[in-house]
Amino acid sequence: MLGNMQDFPLLVTSLIDHAEREHGEREIVTRWANGQELRSNWGIVALEARKFAQMLGRLGVQRGDRVATIGMNHAHHISSWYGTAGMGGILHTINPRLHADQLVYVLNHAGDRVLLFDKMFQPIVEAIKDRLETVEHFVLFDNAPASDGYACYRDLIDAEDGDYRWVDADERDPVGLCYTSGTTGNPKGVLYEHRSNVLHAITALQPAVMDLSSRSVMLPIVPMFHANAWGIPFAAAAVGAKLVCSCSNDGGVLWKLFREEKVTFSAGVPTVWLAMFADMDANGGDYGALQRVVIGGSAAPRAMIERLKKAGITVAHAWGMTETSPIGTTGARPHNWAELSFEQQVDIIAKQGRPPYGVELRIVGEDGQSLPRDGKTSGRLQIRGPWILQRYFGSEELAIDEENWFDTGDVSVLFPDGTMQITDRAKDVIKSGGEWISSIELENEAVGCDGVAEAAAVGVHHPKWDERPLLLVVRKPGATIGAEDILDHLQGRVAKWWLPDEIKFVDELPHTATGKILKRALRDEYADYSLATADD
Amino acid sequence: MLGNMQDFPLLVTSLIDHAEREHGEREIVTRWANGQELRSNWGIVALEARKFAQMLGRLGVQRGDRVATIGMNHAHHISSWYGTAGMGGILHTINPRLHADQLVYVLNHAGDRVLLFDKMFQPIVEAIKDRLETVEHFVLFDNAPASDGYACYRDLIDAEDGDYRWVDADERDPVGLCYTSGTTGNPKGVLYEHRSNVLHAITALQPAVMDLSSRSVMLPIVPMFHANAWGIPFAAAAVGAKLVCSCSNDGGVLWKLFREEKVTFSAGVPTVWLAMFADMDANGGDYGALQRVVIGGSAAPRAMIERLKKAGITVAHAWGMTETSPIGTTGARPHNWAELSFEQQVDIIAKQGRPPYGVELRIVGEDGQSLPRDGKTSGRLQIRGPWILQRYFGSEELAIDEENWFDTGDVSVLFPDGTMQITDRAKDVIKSGGEWISSIELENEAVGCDGVAEAAAVGVHHPKWDERPLLLVVRKPGATIGAEDILDHLQGRVAKWWLPDEIKFVDELPHTATGKILKRALRDEYADYSLATADD
Repeated sequence: MLGNMQDFPLLVTSLIDHAEREHGEREIVTRWANGQELRSNWGIVALEARKFAQMLGRLGVQRGDRVATIGMNHAHHISSWYGTAGMGGILHTINPRLHADQLVYVLNHAGDRVLLFDKMFQPIVEAIKDRLETVEHFVLFDNAPASDGYACYRDLIDAEDGDYRWVDADERDPVGLCYTSGTTGNPKGVLYEHRSNVLHAITALQPAVMDLSSRSVMLPIVPMFHANAWGIPFAAAAVGAKLVCSCSNDGGVLWKLFREEKVTFSAGVPTVWLAMFADMDANGGDYGALQRVVIGGSAAPRAMIERLKKAGITVAHAWGMTETSPIGTTGARPHNWAELSFEQQVDIIAKQGRPPYGVELRIVGEDGQSLPRDGKTSGRLQIRGPWILQRYFGSEELAIDEENWFDTGDVSVLFPDGTMQITDRAKDVIKSGGEWISSIELENEAVGCDGVAEAAAVGVHHPKWDERPLLLVVRKPGATIGAEDILDHLQGRVAKWWLPDEIKFVDELPHTATGKILKRALRDEYADYSLATADD
Repeated sequence: MLGNMQDFPLLVTSLIDHAEREHGEREIVTRWANGQELRSNWGIVALEARKFAQMLGRLGVQRGDRVATIGMNHAHHISSWYGTAGMGGILHTINPRLHADQLVYVLNHAGDRVLLFDKMFQPIVEAIKDRLETVEHFVLFDNAPASDGYACYRDLIDAEDGDYRWVDADERDPVGLCYTSGTTGNPKGVLYEHRSNVLHAITALQPAVMDLSSRSVMLPIVPMFHANAWGIPFAAAAVGAKLVCSCSNDGGVLWKLFREEKVTFSAGVPTVWLAMFADMDANGGDYGALQRVVIGGSAAPRAMIERLKKAGITVAHAWGMTETSPIGTTGARPHNWAELSFEQQVDIIAKQGRPPYGVELRIVGEDGQSLPRDGKTSGRLQIRGPWILQRYFGSEELAIDEENWFDTGDVSVLFPDGTMQITDRAKDVIKSGGEWISSIELENEAVGCDGVAEAAAVGVHHPKWDERPLLLVVRKPGATIGAEDILDHLQGRVAKWWLPDEIKFVDELPHTATGKILKRALRDEYADYSLATADD
């Protein structure tokens, strides 16, 4: 039957159409890896998206084919997303920090026919090129000219006229592909759809999520190969925000861009903020026009929250994962904010926030039964909603239960007002005497201690308690802090029985491709470690 | 084929589910017509919505049936919306200010089976009761107890236990019905759908539209029977905003509520703000916590914009109509706001704003061809998008063209940045010598003149120019202003050839049910008027 309201599919291409039509001159600035700058705008990026779609057609790419990118954040990358979507293709973003075997796996598993890569990743590509089974076209993606037998984006785009009309699509058609970094087994692909991306984009705009408008100047530090840069290139198009993209995450380069481009909003993992603080401490300078920071990937240390807050910056956590598009929760000021003390405000910011309309959360016990939202009980976090995955790419099996719940692998607490606090990854939690110790909370408290640069808590086998915490600590350069200092600091900040049985100083800790501490490697390394207390 | 992301229909009921789950204790305050107060919250309103659904079932209401309300803004009204949607019914809001014949027409045309009405509207209902063909149940809706043979909301709700699960629905199922007031012919019904209402609600949240979060305290002066109170009861649920509802639009009552409930945001037609200013001028007082005002229905006089702006309040127009759910455009600060002078800022606010993602606008000439967005050319405004009507309720004919364009009946100018300015209603525009004179612009400039309370410009037949403007003016109480004063004021503010040929002082002007000046009646009254200049 004919509906009464209009039939408009929610298509990613309608986002770039809107940006071009209503905000065509709003800027998109790219700072390339070689220090050069490209000043573009939504109108130009939209035109290049149409040229990109034409170019893919010329290369023989068909509807439903996958097009891969190994690229940093830049204007070409944004055009490639919209152009691929607009010709019915699927844009596959690849994390360059994956191991070579994983890169080969994801490219072959996705069946990518085209691979665009930034010049800096040419060695990575060449190291695996012979093992790629489906890639027919290799294209230099950033501002590098054609060389070494590779065509380049600029030449290919300039050969097209942009006279292209997006193919008709269904809003449930797939449009993007991103593999989870997968600490065990092969990476698994998450296939985003037009509809899920558009709903996620307009949700991101609201004040309690990212608070975006055409007045925003956003520098997404989070890379486009990491869960769609949290969806920012879609959300920004929905309002015509100015985007500032950097191919370098060097603290000094970023601060310079923040100030020169009057960045008001940024989003990234905690480690990049540490790098930026280090640069600021060394070279001085202020925060420029910065008003709002969203931190995700892992929890921000309390000291980082306090530093940003004292500078007058609205700081909030966001929590999500590749499988959730990624927004699951975001921190936002509750309505009684003005009545809270500084410490109470920081307590709220230190949690992961609340779900926007569209997302539903629950925690379950080991038996799969729902647990209360009492701010105390912790359980496995589950999530459902229109931008949450239901099955992995190429899999016939559902990744959700019969009520749509997707198990996140995180352990968390839910508060009565819906606020969520991650207490650990399910596999990282330290099981001591039948109770759970949060490795993350131990680490965050340890990092708040003067002289500690980084810390990792792992469960080590203990004959009596099953597991007990071992805390691995990297000292700040020049710091002489000892184990007793850290224990003194932890006293009163965590439960007494959470105190690590041993604190071991190391020169560095291993990290995942996305900058998180690689707990699995530490667990392997310390699997047979003998705690000094094991004979207690 | 099984999708990769989850299947979640966009249902109105998921809005109230979210509000109950995540913001259950956030308040909904009702100030009844008799001065009593009801303090409720999203949790209670959600529970009563389930009871309302049960109650409709008990009354024999079936899926797809229509349930009518003639009510002001109050918590019962909100529960009735969600409860009707949740049992698969269609909630039909009726404007009590319609003429009796129109009331009878819309109730019979809609085939309403239940009619809920506030006590104050009992005389209206009783005057038409005998002519209603389908209504089986009449229920007192507000805080009035059962009386005169009518059951009341409270008794019926209290008889239910609330143990109810919403029926499964498709997101394209109809959920709400509102008739246009129709200045010619019979009123026409707009049938809203779950999906259109939900997309409209999450769009309303963004900073450039209504800027809503759980911190907002909203008093929608715009009534729920007027284009869903601009969708506010849906948008507020999506974020758990506090709602303050008043059954009285008396200026003094409203200001008291603003201050007592710490209202941060309000929305209404210009006339209610005039009433509130009058109260403030007479009785003193400040704006309380008010931060943001959205004005729609008709254009705000420049003096009103300036007064609110000088008080530090963010003021913006919104433009839309029943057929557009209603948001079409909203005023928002452009990114270069801080560089603009006070006057330039007021110039922007005086326009109708820009379309959010989802809405597309164009203007066309008499031949139906698109006209340029040059800030000068005016044409008939057309609109399309997922919350724009495609056919009227019960009609087999499409109300849009083959490209989905709906003709609004407004005449407007589009600026290069997408800003829209209504210059007139197509039928009100004054056609003089082949050119168009905006009756609205003449009226707005006239109202800016000291001593003018209200003004209406109508085109009167002229032998040489076809039509020439006649300006009808209501003086402020005690004002002694004359025609020459107004002409002096208009000089330089409008083009010389726009100056009215005659200014006539009247005691009052006729208004439509929604408070706009009833131009049709004036055109009828002055159809044969002889202008003093007609012999020129």
